[in-house]
Amino acid sequence: MGKSIFLGFPHMIYGGDYNPDQWLHRPDILEEDIRLMKEAHVNEVSIGIFAWKALEPEEGVYNFEWLDQVFRRMEEAGINVILATPSGARPAWMDHAHPEAMRTDSMRFKALHGERHNHCYSSPYYRKKVREMNTMLAKRYKDSPALKMWHVSNEYGGECHCEYCQAAFRKWLEKKYGSIEELNRQWWTGFWSHGFNSFEEIESPSPRGEWELHGLNLDWARFVTYQTNDFMAEEIKPLKEITPDVPVTTNFMGIYPGLDYWRMKDTVDVISWDSYPTWHNDGETLAQTAMSNAFIHDVNRSLKHQPFLLMESTPSKVNWHKVNKLKRPGVNELVSMQAVAHGSDSVQYFQWRKGQGANEKFHGAVVDHYGKADTRVFQEVAHLGQSLEKLDEVVGSDTAVDVAVIFDWNNRLAIGNLQGLSNRRDYEGVVRDHYRALWEQGLNIDVIDEEEDFSSYKLVVAPMLYMVKPGVAERLRAFAKKGGTVVFTYLTGLVNENDLCFLGGFPGDGLMELAGVWAEEIDALYESDRNSMIGLEKEYELKDICEIIHLKGAKALANYGEDFYQGQPVLTLNEYGKGRCYYIAARPDYQFLADFYKKVVKELGLAKPEFDVPEGISVTVRESKEAKFYFIMNFAEKDVNLDLGSICGVDLISGQEYSGKTCLLKTGYLVLKVEK
Amino acid sequence: MGKSIFLGFPHMIYGGDYNPDQWLHRPDILEEDIRLMKEAHVNEVSIGIFAWKALEPEEGVYNFEWLDQVFRRMEEAGINVILATPSGARPAWMDHAHPEAMRTDSMRFKALHGERHNHCYSSPYYRKKVREMNTMLAKRYKDSPALKMWHVSNEYGGECHCEYCQAAFRKWLEKKYGSIEELNRQWWTGFWSHGFNSFEEIESPSPRGEWELHGLNLDWARFVTYQTNDFMAEEIKPLKEITPDVPVTTNFMGIYPGLDYWRMKDTVDVISWDSYPTWHNDGETLAQTAMSNAFIHDVNRSLKHQPFLLMESTPSKVNWHKVNKLKRPGVNELVSMQAVAHGSDSVQYFQWRKGQGANEKFHGAVVDHYGKADTRVFQEVAHLGQSLEKLDEVVGSDTAVDVAVIFDWNNRLAIGNLQGLSNRRDYEGVVRDHYRALWEQGLNIDVIDEEEDFSSYKLVVAPMLYMVKPGVAERLRAFAKKGGTVVFTYLTGLVNENDLCFLGGFPGDGLMELAGVWAEEIDALYESDRNSMIGLEKEYELKDICEIIHLKGAKALANYGEDFYQGQPVLTLNEYGKGRCYYIAARPDYQFLADFYKKVVKELGLAKPEFDVPEGISVTVRESKEAKFYFIMNFAEKDVNLDLGSICGVDLISGQEYSGKTCLLKTGYLVLKVEK
Amino acid sequence: MGKSIFLGFPHMIYGGDYNPDQWLHRPDILEEDIRLMKEAHVNEVSIGIFAWKALEPEEGVYNFEWLDQVFRRMEEAGINVILATPSGARPAWMDHAHPEAMRTDSMRFKALHGERHNHCYSSPYYRKKVREMNTMLAKRYKDSPALKMWHVSNEYGGECHCEYCQAAFRKWLEKKYGSIEELNRQWWTGFWSHGFNSFEEIESPSPRGEWELHGLNLDWARFVTYQTNDFMAEEIKPLKEITPDVPVTTNFMGIYPGLDYWRMKDTVDVISWDSYPTWHNDGETLAQTAMSNAFIHDVNRSLKHQPFLLMESTPSKVNWHKVNKLKRPGVNELVSMQAVAHGSDSVQYFQWRKGQGANEKFHGAVVDHYGKADTRVFQEVAHLGQSLEKLDEVVGSDTAVDVAVIFDWNNRLAIGNLQGLSNRRDYEGVVRDHYRALWEQGLNIDVIDEEEDFSSYKLVVAPMLYMVKPGVAERLRAFAKKGGTVVFTYLTGLVNENDLCFLGGFPGDGLMELAGVWAEEIDALYESDRNSMIGLEKEYELKDICEIIHLKGAKALANYGEDFYQGQPVLTLNEYGKGRCYYIAARPDYQFLADFYKKVVKELGLAKPEFDVPEGISVTVRESKEAKFYFIMNFAEKDVNLDLGSICGVDLISGQEYSGKTCLLKTGYLVLKVEK
Repeated sequence: MGKSIFLGFPHMIYGGDYNPDQWLHRPDILEEDIRLMKEAHVNEVSIGIFAWKALEPEEGVYNFEWLDQVFRRMEEAGINVILATPSGARPAWMDHAHPEAMRTDSMRFKALHGERHNHCYSSPYYRKKVREMNTMLAKRYKDSPALKMWHVSNEYGGECHCEYCQAAFRKWLEKKYGSIEELNRQWWTGFWSHGFNSFEEIESPSPRGEWELHGLNLDWARFVTYQTNDFMAEEIKPLKEITPDVPVTTNFMGIYPGLDYWRMKDTVDVISWDSYPTWHNDGETLAQTAMSNAFIHDVNRSLKHQPFLLMESTPSKVNWHKVNKLKRPGVNELVSMQAVAHGSDSVQYFQWRKGQGANEKFHGAVVDHYGKADTRVFQEVAHLGQSLEKLDEVVGSDTAVDVAVIFDWNNRLAIGNLQGLSNRRDYEGVVRDHYRALWEQGLNIDVIDEEEDFSSYKLVVAPMLYMVKPGVAERLRAFAKKGGTVVFTYLTGLVNENDLCFLGGFPGDGLMELAGVWAEEIDALYESDRNSMIGLEKEYELKDICEIIHLKGAKALANYGEDFYQGQPVLTLNEYGKGRCYYIAARPDYQFLADFYKKVVKELGLAKPEFDVPEGISVTVRESKEAKFYFIMNFAEKDVNLDLGSICGVDLISGQEYSGKTCLLKTGYLVLKVEK
Repeated sequence: MGKSIFLGFPHMIYGGDYNPDQWLHRPDILEEDIRLMKEAHVNEVSIGIFAWKALEPEEGVYNFEWLDQVFRRMEEAGINVILATPSGARPAWMDHAHPEAMRTDSMRFKALHGERHNHCYSSPYYRKKVREMNTMLAKRYKDSPALKMWHVSNEYGGECHCEYCQAAFRKWLEKKYGSIEELNRQWWTGFWSHGFNSFEEIESPSPRGEWELHGLNLDWARFVTYQTNDFMAEEIKPLKEITPDVPVTTNFMGIYPGLDYWRMKDTVDVISWDSYPTWHNDGETLAQTAMSNAFIHDVNRSLKHQPFLLMESTPSKVNWHKVNKLKRPGVNELVSMQAVAHGSDSVQYFQWRKGQGANEKFHGAVVDHYGKADTRVFQEVAHLGQSLEKLDEVVGSDTAVDVAVIFDWNNRLAIGNLQGLSNRRDYEGVVRDHYRALWEQGLNIDVIDEEEDFSSYKLVVAPMLYMVKPGVAERLRAFAKKGGTVVFTYLTGLVNENDLCFLGGFPGDGLMELAGVWAEEIDALYESDRNSMIGLEKEYELKDICEIIHLKGAKALANYGEDFYQGQPVLTLNEYGKGRCYYIAARPDYQFLADFYKKVVKELGLAKPEFDVPEGISVTVRESKEAKFYFIMNFAEKDVNLDLGSICGVDLISGQEYSGKTCLLKTGYLVLKVEK
Repeated sequence: MGKSIFLGFPHMIYGGDYNPDQWLHRPDILEEDIRLMKEAHVNEVSIGIFAWKALEPEEGVYNFEWLDQVFRRMEEAGINVILATPSGARPAWMDHAHPEAMRTDSMRFKALHGERHNHCYSSPYYRKKVREMNTMLAKRYKDSPALKMWHVSNEYGGECHCEYCQAAFRKWLEKKYGSIEELNRQWWTGFWSHGFNSFEEIESPSPRGEWELHGLNLDWARFVTYQTNDFMAEEIKPLKEITPDVPVTTNFMGIYPGLDYWRMKDTVDVISWDSYPTWHNDGETLAQTAMSNAFIHDVNRSLKHQPFLLMESTPSKVNWHKVNKLKRPGVNELVSMQAVAHGSDSVQYFQWRKGQGANEKFHGAVVDHYGKADTRVFQEVAHLGQSLEKLDEVVGSDTAVDVAVIFDWNNRLAIGNLQGLSNRRDYEGVVRDHYRALWEQGLNIDVIDEEEDFSSYKLVVAPMLYMVKPGVAERLRAFAKKGGTVVFTYLTGLVNENDLCFLGGFPGDGLMELAGVWAEEIDALYESDRNSMIGLEKEYELKDICEIIHLKGAKALANYGEDFYQGQPVLTLNEYGKGRCYYIAARPDYQFLADFYKKVVKELGLAKPEFDVPEGISVTVRESKEAKFYFIMNFAEKDVNLDLGSICGVDLISGQEYSGKTCLLKTGYLVLKVEK
């Protein structure tokens, strides 16, 4: 069995956000909570999120008594505590006394008090207050046996354009570029007479000023990540000093574009994320939603290549989708298990009990305003609690992976900024299409930044690798030379890390050699336009973007079927060293990718389940030293027949042995333990 | 005959806005106006609206001569005057000398001079100026026999966020809550650490600060009504002191969401409103538009349960719809009579003569830029003038009502604020659907606030009674106990008047006992989703929102036909005391409501016309001590056959007797007087 | 042969924007540029646009060396230079030292540094800097034989609301109106109490203040043109003093609504414009796009009734359309020739070489990031260069025109401001429909302002002549009296130049006499509504707007087929003096206009090609003293058979003689020289 995230707690973590500070006037309810938690098989609560006003009701006046009591109760009940620092929202007294700790927006308007997640990350006052508060919390609760983890702040995000931040940004730029001349060259400020004479002349992007200087936009976004991470590091410092053995996390927001989590991952001990897919979405199957959610789980596991926490999810519905559908019976258990299948060692909810007022009062929770356990939601939550108790063996287990899909945050930003081509660039959708073709085959997949190490994989899929950061091209070539397979698409190798075009032909920075093609022009298609890919067994549709490429060493596998570039190559293969490189010059329909990756997976002999994975079924494998755990999950919205073929294992949930043909009921799942 | 609104003028009022101040340089046109008014059978003009610059051209320099002359002319011509106070727009000199009287918006930006309806209601300077101006007007014209009514300002609306208003808001909050602790509890500020230590820390909602604290949003909206009403009361004070016998009104804007007219109604003597439906709307029948308009007429009559004024309407078209269609021949007379049918004792236009310039120059008016009487519009206006002269008996007559539909302003706001469920909540549309099912049967209907007295009704329809204010639940239970029938729908009894959820199960605050059901969960449907209601004679479609309810004493009349709550109740009936309560747990298609209310009206024996009302025909009855006046109006856009059955009456317009079978021509109407 | 625009250069100008200042660190590339220019048959470069930072890197520190070198190179290579003044964008140092030279927007927010085209036109500092810079440029390069033209700034546009501009605006108003009373009368400020006591009280339109006082809006727009032109005149002054013989131009933006080019045309010597149609637009044929583009070419030629320059176009695609499609093979040459056909004596591109970074890096250019000549785009550019070298005879030749279509900037603004009627007014679309019906017949057409002289035409088409400026009605009547034909539509003659309605009936200002009809009412139709025009050989559909008119001397040619005005006239003809006037009272489908104008062109015997012009073919004729040049262009997207009938000429491109039947290949064209 692997290492558990909570020291000395070798079980799946089950619980979620708990806000007793909102209910201090109702001691009866606080008592009842403990009783209900046990009934729900909950073993963890995350407390203190947004509790600043409760902890420091006036400047310098502190109140920890209520929190002491919560700790006592949890200790007595044997429930673990993740203690949050309260920096996610400031009390009104603080905003009135120190308005500079509130944000300045890109229009340069100072915020008024309100909402949350809106402090200036550079404010010296706020940094001091947070340090003091975190120190007090750590000192006070360091000896509680219930304290198992720190949760700093909540869903870091957003940006501030105040003078503190401008100064920090300029300093960051100076450190990055060394000289203003180098910055001018990288940002290509000769265009529109935008050259700067000093770093002092630079301001953050603004709709009132500069908003389409791509180098500035990119560096500002990077600075926002840098400064947020720096703030987080300062939050963590006193915690680590006082409680060095308590792990620290913060709740990331999936693939939130505002922060580059790859630059923040090393600052925390454990990755956590808040998962709120639109289950039962309009015009989308449950399996499609599950695939998108799996993609984000895999990003979060890949960040540290180790188990993570599902820090928030809803047992029923959220309150911020346009249409907030109830999770259908069985769905909460199925999709919670999906998190575990992809590497989570917890299932946690926002939140335990619905608040009585304010804007999230109708967000799903374990305990409703109704207040009792005889609801469908509570009963399903309790059932899942019992199931999780059977998965101790899975805790801390690994995920073995042969294939990486590159989904790069900087590249995403740059493609977003890109002016030209088509408004139908859809980087995220394209990457997910490639991911899906592998996911449907039941492969374990890493989803990584382009700066990660490729050497442990057999296949690296790099869709729309528009931005090629220093060293990446070289490492890709080395990977292929040693036998690795690379998949490229159109829009590869156009710019460096500062969005400056490579000269001499695309794909640039030496990737032309790897791809074996030269991309001369890029045509954009209207939404209703289609081209076709011909020359393979089937004909496939092409849409959105078609690159006109020329062979420079590669061989054509398929050609365009239409338009003035009819007959020119659209799919090529280049043998390179011991490896190879595919180039897909246009956006194909999904069916092409499904067929293509089936062939590639087979050719390369990538690790996948020993049996065929029917449509709507997802398979993911975690493994310990002794065994493999096959998570076989039915997202097909109906019963599905399955032939397990040669494998034989015991379902950890039911204790029953499975092999050969079986039927997975609607929303059903198995956790088959197969001894090594 | 009832009491007339104009003292000693026992006729229907006919006229509208008249702006001679725009034409002072054209005395020939001012002369011609009088001649044309007589030709149009006009007996009233509303003057002085937006005339501040004409009355006080510079600070402290007054000019009443032109208005004296207008009064003289009207006295000579026997035309009644409604004199407006000019506060609806400020002259440029005032805005430049006193910018603080202009508004500050929610972003905290001060307005520049321009537009109208944009003064700060709290400005001490502006309140003083208005008091002085109104005093001068009242003193100067108090003895004119033409002066029949005051019209304060124009279409009050909007809000101001300046420091004067913030201070007044804080004072209002302090008075409402008594202590900051109580406010914190009601607004549930423990959420997101938002607790306040003093009222001084509170600011009005702002996109730059707080905008989703529902309690704050609601109270701010209430304060805006309070402060507007307070300003209006100050406007009225000098008028009442100097001309105590002249009634006061202001022109409301239908069901404008920005002001709660139920809190303002007692400040004026007579309700007036400006009616600008989109007649001949795209994809809507004339009858549908007429139904929506009838709904608003009924709101306005219900405000004081007495005759009101149709203060503004257009004889042809407006200038602010996206597509401004001409009223088809006959339509102006038909829809003007609809106002009278629903309780108006006037038909008034905006405006008498089209202005030569500025942005409303193409808004329909009686006299066109053309300037003569030989236009279609003028001739139709003159014809209606003659028709109205035949309705003296109707003046001041009552409307007897058995059924009330609750359409509550606070509830509307709260449902608008609500985060969660579905973006397809559509409170207004749902209420109107219920109203329509009664309107189509020809019933007189009151449309009321939930704080109104229910005791005089036999049926109270309360769709989506999400917010239940103090005492309302108790009064509803009492109403039912004594034999009344209540109709509830999904989303009933969730929050108190401050948007704080009732604990212990919905419908809360004791309404579960009345409804006999417990609503456990609320499912939201996508636009294309449908469920069905089964178990009745017909099957009906359900959409938008489906509540999962459990019987707690009620009996199920119909069940869900689909989804995981298939077979669970969707329509229930609970016997309660001598009365009963229906609960409709999902949004049905209109046909269900039509069938349902036919049954209910029949069962309860509610007062309705003695004959069948064909599709497209609307019937409303006013009554005096001696007679009933049946307004039978053809909105069907074609000739319609009608069987009057047992009733027999004289059409006041034609003087002809009607009974049995008859045909109502396209756009035709009857005003049948049936002796009691 | 006519006069050439470049003194002593009797060839078609071929080149475009060249930005060597972005590549000073790459002297190899600057060398290579010259070699490639020759290979591309380029004979002109436009330099210095946005080069302020390169020319004055710090306040008072100048650097002309690089520009000296460029001039030397061009002189050596025999390439002509259009030298731009750099005022289109300011360097960062200037914005930081003189923020007042940046704009204030209509919300009264001062801009921050960034973007371009955003200086305050009133700033004394910036006017001084521009004067100094332009003086230096003129003095330094006055003797270069390469200098052939000045290009002041770049794409003037936008507006500033700072106090300098407010003061200038007030002064402009005072000069226009003489007295505040006259302004009040013209703006009809009596409405909403908006009268001003002094010019000091007036501010520019703002969303925070006044935005729907139409007179103010119109005058502000006129002032923006006035002030921009004043700034431009100041830019030009030193150039003319130092280099009186070098012509001056600036690049207009087609029919950009922000500036009235008719008020600016006399300030420059030559008209230039930047043409970026959406070739291969979704759901539009190539011929439709070509027609819209021809319309704008004709506006630009009509401005001075002399040859103009195509200052910018793209050889492949732009970077700012939503979907940036590649120009298909042959299309660049075809549409470049279209410019020449309509009067351009140049074909110029933005830009020569793609920049390496910033937001326009993917805008099409002659030389790609790839950097070599073996691209499709470069080869097509070089081919066109060779073709243009064969058109020396066409340089400076005239365009003879019988018909003018009025497309008036002030009228467009006023119709845009208009509140009422329909949101489907579409002035531009309506004018273009009338233009199209003439364009398809191959006529040369002028597109003019209503203040232009009509006397040289035989037919004046004036669609939606809503605003009739002083003298226009009189001149139209005089034109018709002498035998001219006028075509009017609905919405004619409603307001004067200040948007004040004419009293006494529409069309006003005496146009009722010319049209012979009185327009009583205007009905607006929803998008899906249709009426019909009956009484002609065919029946036609009507949409959007239907005017109800009465004959006052005219005779009805066709009537309405539907609605309550069925049978009333919709198309009329009035004989007037020796001429006539048509009135089209509703918006017909295009087929009506096609048939109508075929008849009119035939009746009036207007000059058109001697042969039938097939669908998709465009014909335009330029002529010198000796010959006519028939540009016959195939926009049909397929090969088209053509019968040239009686004419016989030599194609200047191929040198081949053409007459009788021939076939024009897809994207093909002929430039037939027919001796007179």
